[in-house]
Amino acid sequence: MREQAREVVAGNVRAAARACRMVDDELPGHLELLKDLFPHTGRAWVVGVTGNPGAGKSTLTDRLIEALRARDAKVAVVAVDPTSPFSGGAILGDRIRMQRHAGDAKVFIRSLATRGALGGLSRSARDIVHVLDAWGADVVLVETVGVGQDELEVVRTAHTTLVVMAPGMGDDVQAIKAGILECADVFAVNKADREGADSTVRDLELMIALGGETVFGGSHSASHVGATLDQKARDGPRTGKWTPPIQKCVATKNQGVAELLTKLDEHHSWLESSEAGRARQAERLVMELQAMLRDVLGREARRSLSSEVVSLAARVARREVDPYSACEELVLRFRTTVPGEPKE
Amino acid sequence: MREQAREVVAGNVRAAARACRMVDDELPGHLELLKDLFPHTGRAWVVGVTGNPGAGKSTLTDRLIEALRARDAKVAVVAVDPTSPFSGGAILGDRIRMQRHAGDAKVFIRSLATRGALGGLSRSARDIVHVLDAWGADVVLVETVGVGQDELEVVRTAHTTLVVMAPGMGDDVQAIKAGILECADVFAVNKADREGADSTVRDLELMIALGGETVFGGSHSASHVGATLDQKARDGPRTGKWTPPIQKCVATKNQGVAELLTKLDEHHSWLESSEAGRARQAERLVMELQAMLRDVLGREARRSLSSEVVSLAARVARREVDPYSACEELVLRFRTTVPGEPKE
Repeated sequence: MREQAREVVAGNVRAAARACRMVDDELPGHLELLKDLFPHTGRAWVVGVTGNPGAGKSTLTDRLIEALRARDAKVAVVAVDPTSPFSGGAILGDRIRMQRHAGDAKVFIRSLATRGALGGLSRSARDIVHVLDAWGADVVLVETVGVGQDELEVVRTAHTTLVVMAPGMGDDVQAIKAGILECADVFAVNKADREGADSTVRDLELMIALGGETVFGGSHSASHVGATLDQKARDGPRTGKWTPPIQKCVATKNQGVAELLTKLDEHHSWLESSEAGRARQAERLVMELQAMLRDVLGREARRSLSSEVVSLAARVARREVDPYSACEELVLRFRTTVPGEPKE
Repeated sequence: MREQAREVVAGNVRAAARACRMVDDELPGHLELLKDLFPHTGRAWVVGVTGNPGAGKSTLTDRLIEALRARDAKVAVVAVDPTSPFSGGAILGDRIRMQRHAGDAKVFIRSLATRGALGGLSRSARDIVHVLDAWGADVVLVETVGVGQDELEVVRTAHTTLVVMAPGMGDDVQAIKAGILECADVFAVNKADREGADSTVRDLELMIALGGETVFGGSHSASHVGATLDQKARDGPRTGKWTPPIQKCVATKNQGVAELLTKLDEHHSWLESSEAGRARQAERLVMELQAMLRDVLGREARRSLSSEVVSLAARVARREVDPYSACEELVLRFRTTVPGEPKE
């Protein structure tokens, strides 16, 4: 075990692959391994890549790998796939496109399947990022297929989040999921040679200008937006706040990719050199620990209370007890039963 | 408080609206209200409506309301919206379309905004369904905007889940999210007058035929699929298993809607009259209670350990402790500290 951790830290690709599998499947010893590896983490820059299906995330990720390799950076990719058997083909196709980097010893690509359980995916992604960080990746790209809540959780574990949009994806406006604005550090408008790209950029600019303000019921005239943008520009240098830039690109033609990487780099520098950036990093760590705590609690409760849950559910079905009181009873039992056996 | 519950159970619309608001905002007394209402629940048929943005879910839901009202059913709709300020307009537009039922005392429409916190939305939806059930709804339609993990959780609280697809929505295959197949009871192929509708139906048939089998790496010839379908047909009557039917419709023209409702009814009957259906109901209740338990645990841990989490996160950042050990420490503290105050 200790030997395995040593091999990962030494940069052994096979050891890293084995470690990822162990962690993903939660095999015995995976927690010890993660604990061994953790002191060797903290060097990698973690970049999340998200956006709706069809925005061209995989192709863009592939181009980013290329651009990062041109700098001789050691790159790891965690590709988060849905389990849907039906989508296998299409997504494997994307993966295969990326696999042209497979012969490159400084590129490591790992696919993660989404699990049925809520939170299972983000747990796994978080742990695998730690493995790849310890393995010596300079950059870890975490790419998700969709933009569901679970994927947003995954993306929140990244230092820098790239949201990829494409024009003409049906109803763009509806397609912008809750939470995306809050987690986006850089926007890419991909397929920018298509009709509607400028309007997608304008929509994003408007959204960024309005920031957290709600649009519901408010009148947002052009002058209002202009004033908000001016205010942002004045605030920027003063508060050190980050305003997400937008980069148009055409991943298939490798256009705008270098510029996009520059914008991602700028965010990376901001994180490390500004007060606000460092505060953001600290906040991210708190969120990560909270998420881990919630996952562990959920798992332990499921394990230690499974028979109680089943019998209480039957009583709820018979209307003998309401589910709110049943839940309170379960929580109290969980909190007052000291776990008898060591974890893992 | 007791009075408010009585008014809801008596079918008072204003009381139900107030109760929904209380529950959604978790105002003081909301748990007592839910406990009071619960013995009066269990009568409503809860139908989840999900699918990708742009599939026409709102229009179809509107038509289903119409068809259900024609039977004089009392209908409640819980519409789950993302918080994105930017999507406000479009979705409000859909809601307004539905609001033509607003003058109808037997139709109750309630929008829910997605919350930042994972699980917040499914908690709220679950509780509001209980309120509307107690209010006397014969049918509660729960419509989600997207198909993220959180929305899947919402949909899993439904008795019958309708998944709405539309042809030509970009990459259909990628668009089928993980978990959809497992939770779909009936498929609607909406906008069936568009090109590609038959191919969407065929894709779905294939997916249903293959069921849980993984497509990865396997060769699925037509004869294989045929054999699987035959096997399903033979299994059906024997095991009482439900095979999701597919209904083509054009919601805007009100075509196929009556047939769709019949298929939904058939699933409802299957749930209530078959062994497998009843087992499924019991399983759903266990999952619901597990989800509630996880939510409550997460919330309590966040509340009672917030300062410990922040200080441990700082130590993790300095690499003084690894997050896995930090988490174990937090869980142990949570489980051995008996909550001092009674819960809300």
